[in-house]
Amino acid sequence: MSATATEEALGTQIEDALRRRFAERSASAERYGTEFVELWHTAAEQALGGKLIRPRLLMDLVHALAAGPLSEDETIAAIDVAAHVELLHYAFLLHDDVIDGDLTRRLRPNLIGALIAGRPEHTAESTAHWARSSAILLGDLLLSSAVLGFARADVSSVARERLLTLLDETIFETVAGEHADVALSDGIVEPDLRTILSTSVYKTSTYSFVLPLRAAAVLTGASAAVEENLTTIGTRIGLAYQLQDDLLSVFGAPEEHGKDAFSDLREGKETAIIAYARMTSQWESIERHFARPDITHAEGSSAREALRACGAEGYVSSLVREHLDAVASSLVEAESSDALPAAATQVIRALTSRVEGRTR
Amino acid sequence: MSATATEEALGTQIEDALRRRFAERSASAERYGTEFVELWHTAAEQALGGKLIRPRLLMDLVHALAAGPLSEDETIAAIDVAAHVELLHYAFLLHDDVIDGDLTRRLRPNLIGALIAGRPEHTAESTAHWARSSAILLGDLLLSSAVLGFARADVSSVARERLLTLLDETIFETVAGEHADVALSDGIVEPDLRTILSTSVYKTSTYSFVLPLRAAAVLTGASAAVEENLTTIGTRIGLAYQLQDDLLSVFGAPEEHGKDAFSDLREGKETAIIAYARMTSQWESIERHFARPDITHAEGSSAREALRACGAEGYVSSLVREHLDAVASSLVEAESSDALPAAATQVIRALTSRVEGRTR
Repeated sequence: MSATATEEALGTQIEDALRRRFAERSASAERYGTEFVELWHTAAEQALGGKLIRPRLLMDLVHALAAGPLSEDETIAAIDVAAHVELLHYAFLLHDDVIDGDLTRRLRPNLIGALIAGRPEHTAESTAHWARSSAILLGDLLLSSAVLGFARADVSSVARERLLTLLDETIFETVAGEHADVALSDGIVEPDLRTILSTSVYKTSTYSFVLPLRAAAVLTGASAAVEENLTTIGTRIGLAYQLQDDLLSVFGAPEEHGKDAFSDLREGKETAIIAYARMTSQWESIERHFARPDITHAEGSSAREALRACGAEGYVSSLVREHLDAVASSLVEAESSDALPAAATQVIRALTSRVEGRTR
Repeated sequence: MSATATEEALGTQIEDALRRRFAERSASAERYGTEFVELWHTAAEQALGGKLIRPRLLMDLVHALAAGPLSEDETIAAIDVAAHVELLHYAFLLHDDVIDGDLTRRLRPNLIGALIAGRPEHTAESTAHWARSSAILLGDLLLSSAVLGFARADVSSVARERLLTLLDETIFETVAGEHADVALSDGIVEPDLRTILSTSVYKTSTYSFVLPLRAAAVLTGASAAVEENLTTIGTRIGLAYQLQDDLLSVFGAPEEHGKDAFSDLREGKETAIIAYARMTSQWESIERHFARPDITHAEGSSAREALRACGAEGYVSSLVREHLDAVASSLVEAESSDALPAAATQVIRALTSRVEGRTR
């Protein structure tokens, strides 16, 4: 098979596993009434449309770390864990959207938006409450499904214990990061650069990058040292990814990244760019356009220029560069010391260059 | 030891297990900043003040079903599962309060209310958002902790698999019940009596009564038949409990049940009492006072009299009676067929009489 055909087959396997989970749940939902079934159908539509970045990364690394080809049972077990990583991601997105009051994600209706759109005949207030509450409840179910999925993984009891510890740490740190993020946006804590960078690591790196990498290590019986090495690498890539995301939102082309131009500025999002700008003399001219729901295109462009002129863009770009360079060095070292097989460093390099070349 | 001393010792054991969990989590929270530590401290204060009805029921039945005295390890394992049942309960309460927009529970500030009270210097809107979001996030952590606790229970692998299946079914059904409850209160589904009764079973009986009873059966290696028997019994007791709760809220003495008089009427809560009243000719006179935030004492009393006169009180009281009688018959049958040991039927009878004699 060509590399692309393998990629496609992998995507299909993960999608099939997810589709089966949703089909089982939709069937179980039937005895609880049409609204609950409708919730599961809407959720399946939303959750199955993703790019499956996290489960793909997990599977790619499982194949790369394994000593030889996986048995059928090993493949099924790994796909199953990978699918539950995706469910965890979707559970976090659901609660994130409730917390942020968002009705869309990447310009399309999210679950809350889709549920509201499906009930045009009801009053706006009660429908919105019902849709938000549905997202809280579905998030609860998917979160517990993810943990149950890890707990029931068809792996050795040692591997299962490691997976559960990994998941426990991951959920705790992600929630801590989300909590800090809310505290930042509600003005409960000061938006200093250090807090913002650690919050990005906790809420993004830990579950989106470190979890798939470490889970692959556990599934292939890699040593604790490899797991630790992958933790550092995943943390750095995740942070670079998040910072790149912040840069794109302000300086990127909206037609490419698919987000509303100036949305971060409009929402007053406390990013590393803003934290840096706050420490410069240009902040006063930027602050006027920060967290203004009615920002115009001209004002947005002017704030963007000021963020460039004050050095915030350059600083954050160099941070991205720095973290990706550090990953590159780790990989060279891991290769020369045989700490990671060449196939594994290749998977991570591919991931790194996707983050580097990101335009959306 | 006297019965009371044993009861006290049991309460202490469960509280200690919970206190240890919260202490561990508070310690882990420290690296994530003072706000996250504060959240855990507030949560511990709230969660440790409860009556521990569910874990006590579980432990009482474990002792009653066990063939002999439990070993120390068995006791520790059972206490641990019982503590996680309480964490699950608290996680559900947290998300329930977010959904209902409540700031108090039984006339005291809940977690959201306590967090708001702790930040008098902030603007009301952002503090409320921060407190609500904190409750969502903490609920997520406690929910996953509960599942992880079951997954790591120090029991045989067969028992663990049974516990996980039980928990999976319990969470799914409880969330389905909560979802139906929200659909009822937002006017998404019709408030007919059948829907209201099944919703009560799903959202109350299943995790508060059936879960502790079935978990005790699993922990003592009881047969699937015993588990099924306990499911029927727990479902009926839970429904009787919920109906009794509805009756108390409308017809009980506020100084005893600790809730605001007429709160169910004021909030327009769709209970079995209301569903029955809707089918009578007196509904018109009751509807005028239903879901009125500004209901006066005189109007509340008049609605209460009408709910009595139309037969709603009598109907719901007889439902309570019917379910408790059915439990009593099941217990007699279980004793005569040796399906349950006498000690176990005694525990369930004690529970039944607490529901019967409830005034708060």
